[in-house]
Amino acid sequence: MLTQTLEDGRKLTDAALERLLPAAGVRPVSIHQAMRHSVFAGGKRIRPILCLEAGRSVAGTLQEGIEELGAALEMLHTYSLIHDDLPALDNDDLRRGRPTCHKVYGEAIAILAGDALQTQAYEVLSQLRCSAEARVKIIEEIARGTGTVNGMIGGQVVDLEAERSKPNAETLEYIHRSKTAALIAASVVTGGIYGNGSAEAVENLRRFGQAIGLAFQIVDDILDVTQTSEQLGKTAGKDIASEKATYPALFGLDESRKKARGLLDDAYNSLQSFGFRAETLNALACFLIERES
Amino acid sequence: MLTQTLEDGRKLTDAALERLLPAAGVRPVSIHQAMRHSVFAGGKRIRPILCLEAGRSVAGTLQEGIEELGAALEMLHTYSLIHDDLPALDNDDLRRGRPTCHKVYGEAIAILAGDALQTQAYEVLSQLRCSAEARVKIIEEIARGTGTVNGMIGGQVVDLEAERSKPNAETLEYIHRSKTAALIAASVVTGGIYGNGSAEAVENLRRFGQAIGLAFQIVDDILDVTQTSEQLGKTAGKDIASEKATYPALFGLDESRKKARGLLDDAYNSLQSFGFRAETLNALACFLIERES
Repeated sequence: MLTQTLEDGRKLTDAALERLLPAAGVRPVSIHQAMRHSVFAGGKRIRPILCLEAGRSVAGTLQEGIEELGAALEMLHTYSLIHDDLPALDNDDLRRGRPTCHKVYGEAIAILAGDALQTQAYEVLSQLRCSAEARVKIIEEIARGTGTVNGMIGGQVVDLEAERSKPNAETLEYIHRSKTAALIAASVVTGGIYGNGSAEAVENLRRFGQAIGLAFQIVDDILDVTQTSEQLGKTAGKDIASEKATYPALFGLDESRKKARGLLDDAYNSLQSFGFRAETLNALACFLIERES
Repeated sequence: MLTQTLEDGRKLTDAALERLLPAAGVRPVSIHQAMRHSVFAGGKRIRPILCLEAGRSVAGTLQEGIEELGAALEMLHTYSLIHDDLPALDNDDLRRGRPTCHKVYGEAIAILAGDALQTQAYEVLSQLRCSAEARVKIIEEIARGTGTVNGMIGGQVVDLEAERSKPNAETLEYIHRSKTAALIAASVVTGGIYGNGSAEAVENLRRFGQAIGLAFQIVDDILDVTQTSEQLGKTAGKDIASEKATYPALFGLDESRKKARGLLDDAYNSLQSFGFRAETLNALACFLIERES
């Protein structure tokens, strides 16, 4: 069941991305190739799938056109990865086993490809097949979730600064909540708005998204310690090597696992009023927290 | 009269920017300081002023809250300057006589500050005080005008690539139209939409904006040749030194001046149906084309 949900969601998202990104042959070709290089690098499309299922959870059925919202979320996630990988930031040569955008296209084009994916996301959002009122709400949620104040960029900044001075637990939680959980929360919140969910349902989805978003990042920290590079498809042990502050480093492995499981319970509790309609989202949450890569 | 228009528009824009950007003390402070460093670096606020006056030209009066749209346009313009100035792109240490963002805050924060100004612009646009229908139209126009297909980023990419191979007249016009004119056109178009202009009026504003946008960049090319660094407030002769393709290099000074004046006529003609309501926009157009710095 869940395997099918993941597979269907991924295919629907990929088809929308294919349609909504300028073709690789459109002038100027270099940037369109660079955007596509990073967008089609084998991502699992977690954020779009959460968005699709959040919409279904409030509306009862898969909402027509919601995959375009999912595609925009994936464009924003990809823009953040391209910029994170740049030499001035994390300086990563590989992602999912493939050379990063700047390794293939150079730094200038990689910077602009990230910029362009953000821009393209908002063009897509402005044209979504829901009411104009829903579209502006969705745009506002996403801009906040990816912004500087408790959003994705803010988390990235504090993460960069934490490399110089060991953060405490409060700062580490701020980083994870902002850098990772805010966009994941925005994915389920905007799915709920697209599906015309009530204000209460949307706020329940927000609590669900915040809980699984933070848990997702804690699990990421844990896997970096416990798995091999081969299992992860990326360099394992990188956090320890770079003396990065992580949940396991600060709390130990057992306590970190306990925190992740506690957040999973919080997520389940957030959607209690959804009844059986929360089933798929809960299964997704469990899958994300119990994953081994 | 025009001096007052410029002064009033600049003040209104600056006050909106002050209000709409996170305060410099908000966490994480480094990025908010970096965003403010570049936004408050003495810009003339040309795009916001054109937007304000486009709104007035269709509505008859200055539209309440339109300065927030102007502020968003300025955030987008500033984001493009921060990224253009980066070492991987134009590698500029100074802008308007002040050190560029990455010289003060480092490359990582400069990349993220540019990203964040784009994000913040869309958050502001999603909350504008016009109808949701007008807001999504405005967001769509701005995303297109700053995107890769005939928009700002596309022009920047072709400009970068032209440094290696001398462009012909067609390519040069593509660069100028995309890199500079598209956002200027979007500024007057969205001002017209905010002011509730008819579809026909908005298309006239688009032709006006495209004409003055291209002329603006041709004049920029001319001034680089004819003015001193002191007059410009930035390094003059840079285009010649870098063997950059420009209108004067391709057509000579006289022919370039003729082209700019021809475009100014096109701009006037675009707004003929506006009657006396086009006066301020026409005066602004004339000012931008006849400027000496």
